[in-house]
Amino acid sequence: MTVRARRCLLVQRPSAIPGDECYAFDEVDVRPLRDGEALVRNLVLALDPAIRGWMNESRASYMPPIALGDPVRSGNVSEVLESRIPGIEPGELHQTLAGWETHSVLDARGFHGRVEASPELPIEKAIHLLGGSGLTAYFGLFEVGQPKPGETVVVSAASGSVGTLVGQLAKAHGCRVVGITGTREKAAWLVSELGFDAAIAHAEEDLRAGLKAACPTGVDVFFDSVGGEVLDAVLARLSVGARIALCGAISQINAENPPPGPRNYVHLLAKRARMQGFVTIDFASRYPEARARLAALAHEGRLVVHQDVARGLDAAPGHFRRLFDGSHRGKLMVSLAEPKGQ
Amino acid sequence: MTVRARRCLLVQRPSAIPGDECYAFDEVDVRPLRDGEALVRNLVLALDPAIRGWMNESRASYMPPIALGDPVRSGNVSEVLESRIPGIEPGELHQTLAGWETHSVLDARGFHGRVEASPELPIEKAIHLLGGSGLTAYFGLFEVGQPKPGETVVVSAASGSVGTLVGQLAKAHGCRVVGITGTREKAAWLVSELGFDAAIAHAEEDLRAGLKAACPTGVDVFFDSVGGEVLDAVLARLSVGARIALCGAISQINAENPPPGPRNYVHLLAKRARMQGFVTIDFASRYPEARARLAALAHEGRLVVHQDVARGLDAAPGHFRRLFDGSHRGKLMVSLAEPKGQ
Repeated sequence: MTVRARRCLLVQRPSAIPGDECYAFDEVDVRPLRDGEALVRNLVLALDPAIRGWMNESRASYMPPIALGDPVRSGNVSEVLESRIPGIEPGELHQTLAGWETHSVLDARGFHGRVEASPELPIEKAIHLLGGSGLTAYFGLFEVGQPKPGETVVVSAASGSVGTLVGQLAKAHGCRVVGITGTREKAAWLVSELGFDAAIAHAEEDLRAGLKAACPTGVDVFFDSVGGEVLDAVLARLSVGARIALCGAISQINAENPPPGPRNYVHLLAKRARMQGFVTIDFASRYPEARARLAALAHEGRLVVHQDVARGLDAAPGHFRRLFDGSHRGKLMVSLAEPKGQ
Repeated sequence: MTVRARRCLLVQRPSAIPGDECYAFDEVDVRPLRDGEALVRNLVLALDPAIRGWMNESRASYMPPIALGDPVRSGNVSEVLESRIPGIEPGELHQTLAGWETHSVLDARGFHGRVEASPELPIEKAIHLLGGSGLTAYFGLFEVGQPKPGETVVVSAASGSVGTLVGQLAKAHGCRVVGITGTREKAAWLVSELGFDAAIAHAEEDLRAGLKAACPTGVDVFFDSVGGEVLDAVLARLSVGARIALCGAISQINAENPPPGPRNYVHLLAKRARMQGFVTIDFASRYPEARARLAALAHEGRLVVHQDVARGLDAAPGHFRRLFDGSHRGKLMVSLAEPKGQ
């Protein structure tokens, strides 16, 4: 029986925020499996900022660019339909590195771990917390940021998929947590719903004044996914021995002429502070430890794991743009189908 | 008997490179000692970039600014003339935190360690190698940079007091060493006299092309005292896991409008690299270990310790400006007097 796959292809490289002209949809017959391959049905597409980097022709990155004419690459939750890979069985749910398409043929490298959904952690929450966002929050915060209880942790893009978790993990660790987000409405949500100690709406308030008020003893750990002026403002408020975990630079990722670098990097000197980039996959051998800890916190009811879900493949391009306009909360996802089981 | 001190005072804060209008000379009677104080004769003034930072009204720094009307602060080698501090004896030579003046009254905090001059390490070389420059090179390179034998170490301001030592220490450690300096003439000196593997004259050559040629496998450790475009160029050549030891930002220190920050800091992300500021005094408890190792290397003839010495207090303002025009090699010093001994 031939399976038809509907796909969303990258047909033009974006120079800034990717418009509809960058994409084309098609439908193809899925080719027969070879040994070492499996056919999956994609249930959920995770819309992560990394995808935007992969759309560029070439930039220092840990993965090659998406080839023009290929489906947009993404981390998915997928259900195995047919398998010629030992250890991958039909009916199983897996985190996969696949793409914006209804079905994918993957080899073993495309399988990134079983998804064990549960009543407390249904598929969307499981992929958010136990997938790339949760792992990035966990290792970036604890391994790179190294917060100590009582310290002040600041997180930018605080309402996003990673930032919401970073802030709550730091709170659970006994830190004072300050979020930086776009709007007052999202800032209020961080404090009232997620338990942040304070939040600053940098699009609507003076960021420097807000930081000064919210961090009277300085910033001990900064988890940054934004860069640009946000990074510059926090650099000027570092405490002695501060650690900056560089997770991304979303202020730069869509800019045709990237903004200047952080002038205040010189504060790293007198503050004996450190700014360090990291890539989550370097911690792959420790994913089981992180997932166990994250799942335990969720089961104890100590983590709000919030998604912003659209339905259907056609929604992917527009929903992905919401990553860059500040209108989303939590993890952006596209839901394609429900699991059928075996 | 009254001692007369000739002094060079800071009377105006510089906005860029400090001109003669910033200084005034006077001569005063040295006041009688109180308990806990000692009178010293300053033999050598070390002209370090940190002095320029202390001339500013206020900047995030680990020391307060020099007050207007006070002598310019500097690290000196001084001979004790008279002492009411237990353990500080007349005739001894000490590293001191004193100033641009022939004589100083210091309390115990002004004394930073005995100077043990020897035929192999006369006073100027001893203060260079075993004083702030040598300690900064040692701890910045080994503690912050953490080079491994075989790695590529790049050092900016390579012809300066710290850079000349960083490069030679890295060579002695088994690293490949590349210097960045202003002119081809200084670059040739680094290779032929100090044993650097390569050197790039950034004022006369294309820095990016030079780095690419000299560091074909990327930069593993960068010891930076310059910042600005030099830092940006090296950021684009980092290897995975690279470490940047931030020692200073001399390209910014005199600028009225500091240049933009390093746009290429985003390379820290994909390269899992780290940029870390440090302040040498944080390692004070380990100075004896560092001095023993540095002195041993010098006695083995494995370090060229090069100074650029002017004579007499009146030469200090002009000689200090040479720190910023790229015309000096090694450590800039002003020699005021020879030790008399007891």
